[in-house]
This record gives sequence, C-alpha cells and structure tokens, in this order.
Amino acid sequence: MKKTLCGIVPPLVTPLLDNNTLDVEGLERLIEHVVAGGVHGIFILGTTGEAQSLGFELRVEMIKQTSRILKKRIPLLVGISDTSLADSVRLSEIAAEYGADAVVSAAPYYYATGQEELAEFYEELIPQLNLPIYLYNMPSHTKVSFAPSTVKRIAENEKVIGFKDSSANGTYLQSVMHEMRDRKDFSIFVGPEEMMAEAVMMGANGGVNGGANIFPRLYVDLYNAATVGDIAKVKELQQKVMQVSATIYSVGCYGSSYLKGVKCALFVLGICNDFLASPFNRFGDEQRDKIKTAIINLQL
Amino acid sequence: MKKTLCGIVPPLVTPLLDNNTLDVEGLERLIEHVVAGGVHGIFILGTTGEAQSLGFELRVEMIKQTSRILKKRIPLLVGISDTSLADSVRLSEIAAEYGADAVVSAAPYYYATGQEELAEFYEELIPQLNLPIYLYNMPSHTKVSFAPSTVKRIAENEKVIGFKDSSANGTYLQSVMHEMRDRKDFSIFVGPEEMMAEAVMMGANGGVNGGANIFPRLYVDLYNAATVGDIAKVKELQQKVMQVSATIYSVGCYGSSYLKGVKCALFVLGICNDFLASPFNRFGDEQRDKIKTAIINLQL
Amino acid sequence: MKKTLCGIVPPLVTPLLDNNTLDVEGLERLIEHVVAGGVHGIFILGTTGEAQSLGFELRVEMIKQTSRILKKRIPLLVGISDTSLADSVRLSEIAAEYGADAVVSAAPYYYATGQEELAEFYEELIPQLNLPIYLYNMPSHTKVSFAPSTVKRIAENEKVIGFKDSSANGTYLQSVMHEMRDRKDFSIFVGPEEMMAEAVMMGANGGVNGGANIFPRLYVDLYNAATVGDIAKVKELQQKVMQVSATIYSVGCYGSSYLKGVKCALFVLGICNDFLASPFNRFGDEQRDKIKTAIINLQL
Amino acid sequence: MKKTLCGIVPPLVTPLLDNNTLDVEGLERLIEHVVAGGVHGIFILGTTGEAQSLGFELRVEMIKQTSRILKKRIPLLVGISDTSLADSVRLSEIAAEYGADAVVSAAPYYYATGQEELAEFYEELIPQLNLPIYLYNMPSHTKVSFAPSTVKRIAENEKVIGFKDSSANGTYLQSVMHEMRDRKDFSIFVGPEEMMAEAVMMGANGGVNGGANIFPRLYVDLYNAATVGDIAKVKELQQKVMQVSATIYSVGCYGSSYLKGVKCALFVLGICNDFLASPFNRFGDEQRDKIKTAIINLQL
Repeated sequence: MKKTLCGIVPPLVTPLLDNNTLDVEGLERLIEHVVAGGVHGIFILGTTGEAQSLGFELRVEMIKQTSRILKKRIPLLVGISDTSLADSVRLSEIAAEYGADAVVSAAPYYYATGQEELAEFYEELIPQLNLPIYLYNMPSHTKVSFAPSTVKRIAENEKVIGFKDSSANGTYLQSVMHEMRDRKDFSIFVGPEEMMAEAVMMGANGGVNGGANIFPRLYVDLYNAATVGDIAKVKELQQKVMQVSATIYSVGCYGSSYLKGVKCALFVLGICNDFLASPFNRFGDEQRDKIKTAIINLQL
Repeated sequence: MKKTLCGIVPPLVTPLLDNNTLDVEGLERLIEHVVAGGVHGIFILGTTGEAQSLGFELRVEMIKQTSRILKKRIPLLVGISDTSLADSVRLSEIAAEYGADAVVSAAPYYYATGQEELAEFYEELIPQLNLPIYLYNMPSHTKVSFAPSTVKRIAENEKVIGFKDSSANGTYLQSVMHEMRDRKDFSIFVGPEEMMAEAVMMGANGGVNGGANIFPRLYVDLYNAATVGDIAKVKELQQKVMQVSATIYSVGCYGSSYLKGVKCALFVLGICNDFLASPFNRFGDEQRDKIKTAIINLQL
Repeated sequence: MKKTLCGIVPPLVTPLLDNNTLDVEGLERLIEHVVAGGVHGIFILGTTGEAQSLGFELRVEMIKQTSRILKKRIPLLVGISDTSLADSVRLSEIAAEYGADAVVSAAPYYYATGQEELAEFYEELIPQLNLPIYLYNMPSHTKVSFAPSTVKRIAENEKVIGFKDSSANGTYLQSVMHEMRDRKDFSIFVGPEEMMAEAVMMGANGGVNGGANIFPRLYVDLYNAATVGDIAKVKELQQKVMQVSATIYSVGCYGSSYLKGVKCALFVLGICNDFLASPFNRFGDEQRDKIKTAIINLQL
Repeated sequence: MKKTLCGIVPPLVTPLLDNNTLDVEGLERLIEHVVAGGVHGIFILGTTGEAQSLGFELRVEMIKQTSRILKKRIPLLVGISDTSLADSVRLSEIAAEYGADAVVSAAPYYYATGQEELAEFYEELIPQLNLPIYLYNMPSHTKVSFAPSTVKRIAENEKVIGFKDSSANGTYLQSVMHEMRDRKDFSIFVGPEEMMAEAVMMGANGGVNGGANIFPRLYVDLYNAATVGDIAKVKELQQKVMQVSATIYSVGCYGSSYLKGVKCALFVLGICNDFLASPFNRFGDEQRDKIKTAIINLQL
C-alpha cells in the first residue's frame, strides 16, 4: 500500500453454506472470478460481506481463507467495523497476522454518536491498529455521517489512508473531496456503483461496488473510461450498470433486495452458494427466475 | 417551451422588505444580474424563493413583478407547490395569466403520501393546469421521494415536460434518468449545485442552482464545460462552486444556512435586501462579515 | 375561554362532496352528533380536518358553517397552521370574525426550523392574533418538535393558553407537563387517543382524539373515568378505544389509514360523506366492508 | 422464572475502569445498592449497560461477576443483543452456564430488517437458546420496531416470556399490550421511566428504568403506588422522576447525556467509576458539578 490505491475494489460477498459455515469452494471461485476480471483490490467483511451477521469466529475464518486464496496478488482490505473498539482491534490484529494490507472501519452502529465522539473513537482506535485504515461512511446503517471536517480531523493521523462513502449523497461526497483536496495520498472511494463513474470523473479514486462481484470487467471498464474522460464510453457502460441496478437489485420489495440479488446472481452464474446469514434469506424460485432473466438480458 | 429547456435556471430568491412586502427594486437588479450572467431561464417561488413562507397575495405579486421585469427574454418557471390542490391550480392560473412558460410542483408536504397517492394527486392536478409542468423532488422537505416508476407514470401525460431533483442522492438521480431514458423531450435538472456538473456530464439537462443568484456566470460556465466534456475546466470551476458551498452556505450551524447565505451575499453585493420571511431571519453583523470575506476570497 | 379548557375536543373531520365543496348537511349532522355525545369543545381545520389539503376559500367556508351550526354551545377552536405567517394571521382574523374562541397552530411545515427560529416565529405571530392560541406539536408532519423549553418560552405570552401534543411520545409529553407545571391555567391536550386516559390520570387536561368524531360518548366516558381515577373503568373503556384503533384505523397498509378509517366509519354510520381531499382517497368497497364489520363488533 | 416477572428491573450500568476492565468493586457496591433498594430483578448488558461497546470477553466477565455477586437473590436477565445470531447464541450459553434466569434480545441493529425478516430471525434464534427470552424494542438504535403482530407471532413460542419497550411511543405500547391481551403470563416492561407509572396503571408489568441504578427505592415506590392505583402518590413521586430526567439526564447537549448522567451520578454517590466505554466519554468537572447539584436538589 505504498502508493494510493485506485480502481475497483469489490466488497466481496461472503459465500456461506449456513449461518456458521463458509462456502470455501465458492469463495475460491469468486476470488478467481474477480481477479480475472481485473479488479484492483478486494474488500472483505463489509456491508455486502454481511460481516455484522457473521459470528466472530466466522469472520476470522473468512480472513484466513481469503488470504490463503488471494496470495497477495492484489491488495486485501478487511472490514473491522464493530460496535466495540476492543473487538475492532482484535479483528485488525488477525487481519495483520494473515497479511491484509489495510483495514476498513464504519462508525460504531448501535449508539448514535456526535461528531466529537466519533472523532475521539477513532483517535482512540487508530493508535492501537497495526495496519493502515480506511474510514467507511455508511449513515443509513450507522445513523451518523462523518462530517467533512471530522474526516479531515481523523485523517491527521497518516495511518488514515482513505475514505469510502456509501451515503449516495453527491453533495456530501463532493464536500469531503473538497475538504481533503490537499491530501494527495488520500484515496476516496464511492460505494454506490450508480454514481461511481461520475465521481471518478470528478476526481474520486475508485469504486467499492457490489456489482463487481458479479461482473468485475464491466466496472473495471467503466472505471477506466472515467479515468481517461471518455464520456461517450462512460455513458454506454453506465447503461449496463443501471440495468444491473434496475433488474438485479430491485427484485421484490425488500430493503435487502440488493444483497439478495447479488448472491442470487452469483449462484445463477455457478460461482457460489446463495445462502444469506440471518436476518436475511435467499430468494425463492420465482425471484431467482427473474434474476436469471435479468442476467440473460444484460448480455455481458 | 417548444424544445426542451437546458442549462442553468436559477431558483430566484424573493427579495423582501418585510414579511408582506416585495423589494421590487432589488428584484429588478437581481433579474438583470442573472440575465446578464447568461442563465437559460428563471424559476421563481421555489424553495430558495421561500414560496411557502410567503402569503398567497405576495406570491401573486412576485409572479406579476417578475413577469413585468423579465419581459419574456428567457423562459419563466413558476412554483405552484402547495399542500392544497385547489390553491396549486389557482397559482397556475395566475402564472399563465402573466405569461409564465411552465409551472413547477413539489409533492404536497404536510401529509406524507404513498407512491399511489402521489401519482393520483398529479393525475388529478395536471388536467386542471393550463401550462406545462415540471415535477420537483424535494424529499427532505416533503417527506416523500418520487419513485422513478412514479415519475414515469405521471409523465405519461405529455404536459409533464421535466423533473427537478433536489434529493442530492446520486444513485436516485441516475435511476430516474435511466427510467426516463426513452423520453428525449423530458428535461432533468439537478438542484444541488455541488453535483450539477457531473450530472450534466452523465446526461442531465441542467441545474437549478441557488448559487446562480449570486454568481450566474460561474454556473453557466460550469454547465457549458460539462456539456462539451471539458473535464479539466469542469474540475477547475468545480473548485469555485465548492468554495461557495463551503464558505457562503455554511456560516453558523443553522439548517437554514444556505438560504441565509444566499440572501446575505446578494445584500453584500448590493443587489437586494437580505430580509428572510418568517420562520427565518437574516444573518447578524458577525456572520455578514464572514460572507463578505468569503466573497472576496472567491475572486469571482 | 375564561377558565382552562378541559375534556374531549374532537378534531373535526371536514365533510366534503369533492375537493372544493363542503358537505354542509353532513357537517350539520356531525356537529349535532358530537355535541350530543358530550364533547367539551370542537377543533376544526386540524390534521384530522385535512386543513392543509383544502383551498384557502374552503377553509374559510368551514369556519363560517361550523360557527353557524355550533352557535357557541361549546368552545370552537380553529386551526390556522400554515407555512406562511401572513396567511396564518388572515385565518385567525376570519376565525375571530366568526366567533371562534381560540386558534391552534402547528409549526410551519415546509422548511425545518431550529428551536430558536420556531420560538421567534411564534413571537412574531402571536402579537398579530386577536384570539388566544394553542400550540400544536405534530413532529411527524412538521419535522420539528417543540422542545419543552421552547413551549415555556413561547408561553410567556399569556395569549398562549395551551398545548396539544400529537407526538405519541410519552416521555416527551411528561417532559412538557413537567416544564409547564407552574402554569396552572395552561391546558395540555394529548392527540393520540390510545394514550389519552393515562395522560389525563397523570395530569393532562384532555384529549383531541379523532375517534370522538365517531364515538364521542366513549371518549367522554373514558376521560371522565380518568379524571376521577377509576382505573378499573379506564381499563374497561380503554379496551374499546384500542379496538377502534386496531380495527378502524388499521385497514389497508396506508399511512393515511387513520384518516380514511374515520371518514369511512362516519359514512357507514350515515353521518357524512367519506370523500377525502387530494392527495388522499376514500376506501373502496372491500375496505368499507371491513369498517362496517369493525363497527358492529365494537357494540357501541 | 416460573411466574411472571413484575416490578422494577434496573438495566444495570457496567462499571468500568477502562475500555477493557471491569470495576469489580464498583459492581459489587452497585448490586448491593439496587438489591437493598428493593428492585425485583437485574438486567445486565442492555443499552444502559453499554453492552455493544464492550468486547465479547468483557461481556462474559460481566455475566460471571454479576452472577457471583448476586447469588440468585433476585432474577438475573442478560442481554444477548448482537448483530450476529451465532454470537447471540454463544452469549446465551454463557448466561445459562452462570445461572441467569432469562435473556433479553433487541433486533439485529446493523442491517435494517423488515417484519418478516425480524420474525424469521427470532424463529431461527429461539430454538437455539436454553433460557427463556424477553424481546426488547429499541427502534432508535435498531432502526426497526417490532410490529405488534410480529411480537405476537414470535411469542407463539412459549420460551418468549416478555417484552421490553423502549420506544417511548405510548400509542405503540398500548397497541402491543392490546395485541398480547390474552397472554396472561407475558410480561410487558417499559423502558423510559418518565412513562413507567402510567403504563403500569394501564396494565404493564413494570419498568426497566435506568434511574433505578441511582435511586432504586424511588422507582420501586412509584411502581408500588401505580400497582395499587394510588394516583396522588404516583403524581407526587412522578415529580421526582421528572426532576431526575430534567436535571441528571439533560446535562450538556449530547445524545448520550442520559448514559453520562447515570454513570456520573453513581460516581458522585461513591458507588462506582464513571468511565464510559468508547465511543462515549465521562463528563468533565463542570458537568459533574451540575450532577452534584442536581442530586442535592432532589433530596432523595
């Protein structure tokens, strides 16, 4: 991680056989699939990775197996988001032990914190980490958004090497980019893939996009078109990305449709199991057929 | 309004002497200022225009005076957002009488509606209007967001000629653009100026940006750079736009800082009075000094 | 209004023939129905009265007709809630002209205000009113809750004679009652009927309960049982109130089920039309049958 | 736990020396203090117990020490709320091992769930528990509220013996009580102490009130007055409870003022350390002085 990480870093799903068991063969196929698709790094144990739904031991197993399979071919980022600072530190130690390149941390998500408390949480946490850290903004799940000035304050510690924003708020993302404009070594990633290309054209460093689990090449191509300012190509590929969003993430009327859609598509493509950890459940036959049709229509 | 409206359409502030009296001279200077700045249309009685805080008679007076001053040099859009369908129709009749080109309507904002109710509201309203209409998405104020499919449903009536999105949600905006991709005559405008340029590069038709009251030329130039895909120019001008946002809209810790900042800046520039209608209040001396400094630092 | 108002004050529905026409005969029957049921006052043009959905002229007509029918038999409270201070004043003038006893005002509901702005809005409004005023807390619709200290601050003007809380937050209601404990002449009413009895036992002055449109005697009896501390009677009547809530207000999965249920029940009982002003719609046959069954099962 | 638990069950604070170390002596004093105050049970590792901020090992230590000190004098309830079903089961096993009487579980709090998913989560979890369970509604922290029908559905398993509601929503609490009215063996507890007395008068079984850490006797007396319907006594004691709320929980403008106030008051009274686990911090000298004054003024 000497230089700034850029590009597409899929937030890897966690292939599961049941609530307590990793689908290790599925994980192997998934990692080979995204690496072959040209992604620039891998982020495990994020929101798409259902980290919070996994028991601590299962999270450890996921770190261990991913590290074993990936063999440092591309950077490995590990989510350590937890409501407990102590358990975040433990996860970071394990990530370091298995050779991860950096950790990623969303704000503690049970108690709602103020900005001062949020900054102090990280000022307490970061010195205890032996890996660089990305901050992860996920206000819909954590009930707090890092104020741009809070990002800057926390990032005064140079171990803070980047920021992932999943707020989907374009004004907010621009505000963080503006606040951090003098930190050239600081990576800003955008979560929602629907706005990745435009964010990259405006100067963001890449995307942590769930769809890159399924179609890694599409997101890498879109990222590349955006970095060189090929707007015609961007618009063309964006249509495919929007089609993924409109047809794979929108089956049923669940808040969890995105997660269910991603895992179901991976199952349909023969990559891994589609089991979702509690409190979620995989799609039934009817919805799976819609996902199949959606994949066919995408012609990717 | 034969062809699709594109470009920068400032949501005009309503210059006031007090809660019940228009600052007519200020309005004259303001309109000449934005027209000279090259804007492509004017939108009065929107959120930035404090429409909801104005008595009905004052809204009528604003329509009348704007029409008189503007003399159809550029398109005039009039906000008719109201919780009452009947009063929305009355405002539309008055707008038509004074030569407006179109009306703009945000969802009714007292009762929270479901998507079905929202669609039916417009299916009841639109046939009673004698002007074309833009839908206006402002979920932070109306407590409801037009689902992309609801936009499409309402827009089946060809009197619906466009959509303004002030949600600041980049994923959402892309979803509406995707849903409406086959309606080539349908204009999509973005409210938050911090994300206007990227939205235009991705295919949006323009911006309804409050800052264009103060610095119309800046937003017109940014829009033009975005339409021709001059990304280097976009990034350069975007810095100025972000500086406006960070220094003029962020004085004090008010939810209403944006509105107060815009009116205060217009006052500092000698364009119009800075009185805000209840429930808001103009900035005091200390904050006004910050706005003065911010304007000087902008070097526009 | 010399002495403090206590008891059950139904927030009267506005019987309608269509969006622009009062069902005057229905209004006559409704008023006779609730007066015969022993209610202690009437509140028109509140949330249950769909005030925000009515055009200004229709609101005026509702004041005029109610005043004519009621003939000052019990106190008449008139909602003047509006986003515009000027139009609130106009409504208050009309209410006074037609002999209303007091006005009721919810916070302005388009722009979200801070507590300081909220207090200043009322400090500007109240001196322009020629009637006493009740503050009306309705945060789900107005996006702001009167802080207890803000209630106290605004109520320093003795024209402020009471407070209606529709937040359904029991902790909040107790906090306001605690803050105002030294103002013996200040009435505190609770909106949600499900918690009226307990609030009255704890010292609140009464309820502004929508169900009292349909079954005025039930709510009056429950109020009376609560005021004398007859807990056994309270629990018995509370079962009926909860049955109303569970069976009449919960048909369908609309946010507007409460309003639709109240009007539908009044129609089934032959009291008034069930037309709802846009953006809402009356129930269809299937739902109406459920309301009929619910009424029969209530055995009231 | 043969018969239904009733009364005051303090959600015990977790006395801490630092993020990783229990204040064992403080815990001993605290448990003796509340037992001497007459409370009817103890609930550890809830929201007031900062469970989510504690590492897993520290939670285990808290169970172990509490069990050792309490020696089964009164029922011990243990919070097992976690985002992971697997880790919830582990905590429950440990609680059973140390002789706890029941567990308490709030909805998973990272992903927002729908009602169906929420019900299925518990239908998966409960058969794996070897202790009875109380459901715990805490929507401000979990982003989901148990619908009354969901409570009923989950409680079809007779291992579900009660419900704690911390929503502060009086209408909601009444709705759950109404829905569960035929389950005579099912305990309903109210979290917010400001509305405990009224809820008990209406039929609730008791309170899980944070203030009972500090002043156990006050809450026990209030509970007793409410159960016998002594409304005059209820009103008198309620004044003290409201004074606690207004003066001890409202120092500073933190969302976390309640937690900080409780721990600070316990420190001032010489009971335990006031360290708060990250992301929170103890009060400074100025705020501590306010708490001291508040305690003196309470004259308890």
